[in-house]
Amino acid sequence: MAGIPLFQHRLFSSGIDTKRNTSFSTLNSDDILYFKDILDHKNVVQDEDRLVAANVDWMRKYKGSSQLLLLPKNSEDVAKILKYCNSRCLAVVPQGGNTGLVGGSVPVYDEVIINLSAMDKIVSLDKVNGILICEAGCILENLNSYVENEGFVMPLDLGAKGSCQIGGNVATNAGGLHFIRYGSLHANILGLEVILADGTTLDMLTTLRKDNTGYDLKHLFIGSEGTLGIITKVALLTPCKPSSRSIAFLACNDYICCQKLLAEAKQSLGEAISAFEFMDYHSVEMVLAYTEGVRNPLPASPYNFYVLIETTTSDELYDRTKLEAFLLHAMEMGLVSDGVIAQDLNQASSFWRIREGIPEGLLKAGAVYKYDLSLPIQVLYAIVEEMRARLGNTAKVVGYGHLGDGNLHLNISTTHYDDKILSEIEPFVYEWTAKVRGSISAEHGLGLMKADKIHYSKSAETVQVMTSIKKLFDPKGIMNPYKLLPHRLFQD
Amino acid sequence: MAGIPLFQHRLFSSGIDTKRNTSFSTLNSDDILYFKDILDHKNVVQDEDRLVAANVDWMRKYKGSSQLLLLPKNSEDVAKILKYCNSRCLAVVPQGGNTGLVGGSVPVYDEVIINLSAMDKIVSLDKVNGILICEAGCILENLNSYVENEGFVMPLDLGAKGSCQIGGNVATNAGGLHFIRYGSLHANILGLEVILADGTTLDMLTTLRKDNTGYDLKHLFIGSEGTLGIITKVALLTPCKPSSRSIAFLACNDYICCQKLLAEAKQSLGEAISAFEFMDYHSVEMVLAYTEGVRNPLPASPYNFYVLIETTTSDELYDRTKLEAFLLHAMEMGLVSDGVIAQDLNQASSFWRIREGIPEGLLKAGAVYKYDLSLPIQVLYAIVEEMRARLGNTAKVVGYGHLGDGNLHLNISTTHYDDKILSEIEPFVYEWTAKVRGSISAEHGLGLMKADKIHYSKSAETVQVMTSIKKLFDPKGIMNPYKLLPHRLFQD
Repeated sequence: MAGIPLFQHRLFSSGIDTKRNTSFSTLNSDDILYFKDILDHKNVVQDEDRLVAANVDWMRKYKGSSQLLLLPKNSEDVAKILKYCNSRCLAVVPQGGNTGLVGGSVPVYDEVIINLSAMDKIVSLDKVNGILICEAGCILENLNSYVENEGFVMPLDLGAKGSCQIGGNVATNAGGLHFIRYGSLHANILGLEVILADGTTLDMLTTLRKDNTGYDLKHLFIGSEGTLGIITKVALLTPCKPSSRSIAFLACNDYICCQKLLAEAKQSLGEAISAFEFMDYHSVEMVLAYTEGVRNPLPASPYNFYVLIETTTSDELYDRTKLEAFLLHAMEMGLVSDGVIAQDLNQASSFWRIREGIPEGLLKAGAVYKYDLSLPIQVLYAIVEEMRARLGNTAKVVGYGHLGDGNLHLNISTTHYDDKILSEIEPFVYEWTAKVRGSISAEHGLGLMKADKIHYSKSAETVQVMTSIKKLFDPKGIMNPYKLLPHRLFQD
Repeated sequence: MAGIPLFQHRLFSSGIDTKRNTSFSTLNSDDILYFKDILDHKNVVQDEDRLVAANVDWMRKYKGSSQLLLLPKNSEDVAKILKYCNSRCLAVVPQGGNTGLVGGSVPVYDEVIINLSAMDKIVSLDKVNGILICEAGCILENLNSYVENEGFVMPLDLGAKGSCQIGGNVATNAGGLHFIRYGSLHANILGLEVILADGTTLDMLTTLRKDNTGYDLKHLFIGSEGTLGIITKVALLTPCKPSSRSIAFLACNDYICCQKLLAEAKQSLGEAISAFEFMDYHSVEMVLAYTEGVRNPLPASPYNFYVLIETTTSDELYDRTKLEAFLLHAMEMGLVSDGVIAQDLNQASSFWRIREGIPEGLLKAGAVYKYDLSLPIQVLYAIVEEMRARLGNTAKVVGYGHLGDGNLHLNISTTHYDDKILSEIEPFVYEWTAKVRGSISAEHGLGLMKADKIHYSKSAETVQVMTSIKKLFDPKGIMNPYKLLPHRLFQD
């Protein structure tokens, strides 16, 4: 991250009209003494440099001013910390790998940072059923390596896998690259252990595939962004590791072809598809320009769109034959202009590197306004074109994402943040999305960035119920304040 | 159902210690006038015969004494009914196809029955993405026929499909026969419209695959058994209809072989498996004895266990070849003693008829005590054997179910209900299940039968949170009272 400028703190000019909640206490020396009493001293961090890192998000767009970072070692530590903070009315922000994109995992003001990194133990893996139990601080990539050794695979995969933690994945309901195959975390999480604001432990850590005994409360915490409690343990289903994986990198001339290709792929490849990603020309250009060692597998001529299709099955010959036949068919139909199937693991990785390198390329290029939209597939690319027309030469507008799930990542790249450009983008992008009944956050969550934008995707009645639930679980509002719901709903 | 005796009303002798909640009003003639004012007269049912049918559950084990059956025609009707009932403090029971097995869909006392049968319209089917929107009263089998015509399939299938309604399926989080392939309704429901107790409409009827804007409230209603609101519309994902389906009916000598067969099948058949059902000898015997036109496809000798494996893929040759190779392999390993692959659709149906005929066979045989347990697979059949030893000659104990999901249907068949037998079964069966951290209701729900047994599967803290949520959504407690949660939690 060194060398990337820290953009000016954008909270207020991003249209977020929040002020520090005056009902929260301010940290004092007795608090520090208490935390040093219950935790190892080295896990009570007041060091300036470490606090700076923990106060700033991955995009370096949001910056808090917390004076304390706590590193609990187990669920009991988390329970003690929360019980104390709740009694003292000290606000907290739960933090995992801090790879979120909506300012959800850093403090807004002086909230105590509770980072889960030290809780990274694997509790068990049931090798018959592929059920993993682990602590929330486990890094996704480490978990995947662990279960792969035993013949399983994590049901989610995302670009940030080397840093993001499973607790954060669950708290933000991370989607990622294999959503089309394995579905959302609501489909794969079997159980959770959660510590509530007052320190109560909610043991929902079941490993059963089916359990219809009362309301399935764990779903409330999946995607709650740390506002209802802290997830401390996770039980999840890991599917059998497919013995075969085939990857094609294809070029399409226009968006209509991408859409038709998806419909054909769903019909022909069926249960074998594990990813269907698309990138427009401008996204790929961004990666090629800013990421070392990446080259375009289809260098013959620039194409308007690129599509990456991955199939995984339990039979290599089947997998490969099926994908080849599909590709031939798609070319005959004129849907695909050019294409290549990876010949080995290295080539497969290099295809994925292009898709996964886009966010990093954008970050290196300068300032970036990121929007993560769910849209009806028929109009999914229209917003990119409209935005491009709207912004003209002032910005580079790129569109890519999980086409198979109707999820567009709309990114607007400029040399520096500028309120004038922002005012051209917002609220236009939200209004456009609401008009087609899309979601203004497909997978990134609302965090601080979009907390007061929730009404673009949710009805007033629904927001009202969410607010009541927040108040039920966290009457003092100490859990990750100012995030997910409009802060004004909690002001008297 | 004619000819099957109506068993004596078991509420009190089943250990349910509830009394009518005196805070509820009693229906009067003004109420009837009001309902006749807002609904068509024919949809305000006071006819004795129709009330008798609606007051009794499918197993004829629970019988209420409601004097009124309402048949709303649309969501607005439901909202008006609930708003009125809430203001009058009239308790209600939402009812779908009334195929539940835990007394959840019939009144306990004089609750007004709100039956959704008249709300059976299909709203839309998005043929690109396979997303169906329909009213809650649609019958599952009708929906399946409808989407199959368009190249899709419903993600759930269960024995009661000819009568059960999708709203009831969602409200009870029905699992069924294809759970192993498509996962739970939490994985497949994209959106819901729900009417709350006070008549508020909660519009969560999104059709997006991904939407991380706030708490995902729909999950609270999936499996809430009508205690938080009435589901009026459903949006769900329908997977592509597999072009090929292969079914094998196999015999195993012991339970260890069934377990090993499952592990092998998961590894070898992978993504192709769409069902893995097992039945013990006694279950199959019950079907053969009581269901017409059913015969054992493996008549050579009786085997201790039978397993039905279904694979569905988008490639017939692959499907068939894979299943045949697997079967051969399993025989060589000595896991399977005998087996047959269905040669045509008729034979496939006849295999399924055995599995699906078990509940009906049991019902015809006399009284039946039904338990629907999630258990660690290693000990899943041990409870059947222990129960058999415990009851001796007084009852026939049968075990079958969704082995692939760790879900056992333990059924105890006797000539008539008997408190002495019941006291041998309960609480033993619940204590045994709790000891191995299983679930006392894998898919049937808690209903009236197991409302006060929830603590066997859920912690005190979790039940406390559920109670708070119930009170938040339904402060007067009018929604399906006495069900899901212990009634004493709502008594002052």
